[in-house]
Amino acid sequence: MNSYLIVGGGGMIGQKIAAMLDGEADSIPGGTELALFDLAVPDRSGISAGAILGSLDDDEVISKLAATRPDTVFQLAAILSGESERDFDKGWRINLFANWKLLEALRREHVKSGSKYRPRFVFASSAAVYGPPIDGAVDDLRICEPQTSYGAQKVAAELMVSDFSRKGFIDGISLRLPTITVRPGKPNAAASSCFSAIIREPLNGRRTALPLSTDVRHMHASPRSAARFFLHAARLNTDRLDGRRALNMPSITCSVEEQIEALRSVAGNKAVSLIDMKPDPFIQSIIASWAEEFRTDRARALGFEVETSFDEVVQVYIEDDLPGEPGSPHVKPS
Amino acid sequence: MNSYLIVGGGGMIGQKIAAMLDGEADSIPGGTELALFDLAVPDRSGISAGAILGSLDDDEVISKLAATRPDTVFQLAAILSGESERDFDKGWRINLFANWKLLEALRREHVKSGSKYRPRFVFASSAAVYGPPIDGAVDDLRICEPQTSYGAQKVAAELMVSDFSRKGFIDGISLRLPTITVRPGKPNAAASSCFSAIIREPLNGRRTALPLSTDVRHMHASPRSAARFFLHAARLNTDRLDGRRALNMPSITCSVEEQIEALRSVAGNKAVSLIDMKPDPFIQSIIASWAEEFRTDRARALGFEVETSFDEVVQVYIEDDLPGEPGSPHVKPS
Repeated sequence: MNSYLIVGGGGMIGQKIAAMLDGEADSIPGGTELALFDLAVPDRSGISAGAILGSLDDDEVISKLAATRPDTVFQLAAILSGESERDFDKGWRINLFANWKLLEALRREHVKSGSKYRPRFVFASSAAVYGPPIDGAVDDLRICEPQTSYGAQKVAAELMVSDFSRKGFIDGISLRLPTITVRPGKPNAAASSCFSAIIREPLNGRRTALPLSTDVRHMHASPRSAARFFLHAARLNTDRLDGRRALNMPSITCSVEEQIEALRSVAGNKAVSLIDMKPDPFIQSIIASWAEEFRTDRARALGFEVETSFDEVVQVYIEDDLPGEPGSPHVKPS
Repeated sequence: MNSYLIVGGGGMIGQKIAAMLDGEADSIPGGTELALFDLAVPDRSGISAGAILGSLDDDEVISKLAATRPDTVFQLAAILSGESERDFDKGWRINLFANWKLLEALRREHVKSGSKYRPRFVFASSAAVYGPPIDGAVDDLRICEPQTSYGAQKVAAELMVSDFSRKGFIDGISLRLPTITVRPGKPNAAASSCFSAIIREPLNGRRTALPLSTDVRHMHASPRSAARFFLHAARLNTDRLDGRRALNMPSITCSVEEQIEALRSVAGNKAVSLIDMKPDPFIQSIIASWAEEFRTDRARALGFEVETSFDEVVQVYIEDDLPGEPGSPHVKPS
């Protein structure tokens, strides 16, 4: 039996991971046990998982979660980049201090178990850990000097994951994710939300605003790839990390213009005409402070994989998510 | 009137800073006001400073300290590297979370003042922020991936100082200090304590243990230089930092053997014979994970200065501290 806890399991990537785990459960000897923790979890009868509702900031709930001693904890709960920049207190409270509480709760179980319990802990970090001046592709040895609160919180949390792991309380790994595109559902509080919206909204026949200029370059991986990163990290031999437990995840870098052309090739000029240029200095300044390309030699050598073109990223959205979107017109190539 | 608060003002560097500020007070228009905060502050009638006793972990005391609205806060209070490695809870509690409380208390004053109060905050960080694999001299763009709890805590605290500064709550700068050598007084809980002991103890006629092999290379600055770093940082135009508020401080790198030869040239073979080789794997493993040389172009361009040889470092000890050591024999060159 393998047991998994997805903290932030109500979110988009959490749900993707849950669906993948559920899909493979029958082929795992002894089966799998899956619990989702979040403020709210969508009711999807297709997934066999227990849902636990609560806030990562609630000591009592966190202690109970840890007491279930899951073999693997996926930690995806976070206040997103835009909201963390607007609400300083909330961002630090959840993205750093609540993460500390979760680690501490797992450590208490480690101690209670006579050091036998040592969960795999896969932490969702971000490209936002890097800050300017950034020239070209950033590799894992680049300093993390973010110019956003979200980025600072992610780096500090990574340091905790590494130190708890070095001490043997957990066996952690931090995945520095590129922007996940195309996200299904509604636009969210992430500054990067527009990168998905300019594909998703037109494919669903809706207008969308583009707050960036089209020459902005950014890095992407599909939700399917993101979920696979987490499952791969859960099963990786962490001795291969040589104590350096934060990894740039594979991604493809392209410009907004290239994204728009990928949309055009799939859905034609009419879809592209649904994008309205509306520059937003607040969003632009956050995005401008991020890395636009990763060097991911380490992750690739460890077996992490991603799409090879943005066209493929759009295709994954059409296969995995478009049919389920509310009001989806199932746009076909023109 | 310039007002200064030295958090950790009872410690060795805090006392040096206090003495320097006191020495120049008469030449500062309007004079200076100086307060020292620590668990205990040595009674030195020579320095005109108010002493406030308490723990950095005490919310109430920290709020009162911040309410005095010092123009400049020097934050030197810390659990040292060796103790942080042995006592996981205490290290994180003081070196990260108590530092957060101090920053938050200053931010409350900033808010209460209608954003007028924005203190200069000079944070004592460390070479321990860097971790292996380290080849050659590390510059400010090197990733901070420490393999000690102390190092992780210092990086996380730097990130807080930077984010509070970026938001305009404080005007902060973090000084990544090399090992401060020769420290007067007794050996302390820092893993680096031996680098001072092998000079100080023989010069005072006492035996001392060397837990490292003599080919270990390490970087040093004198206590006098360290105090000057802090005063220089207090008066620096922080616009010149371009938002990158953590700086490697200048230092000189030499081997333990070169240190011993500097001792020999000042105090002869008899002094050197007081050093006992006693390898200690625990201390060795901590030191081995640290950088042994800084690249400090940025700091030097900003006007930070240091000694030019280890002989000079020894000379500074003899001038500034040896006469005051309890039982000092005032060893003269043989």
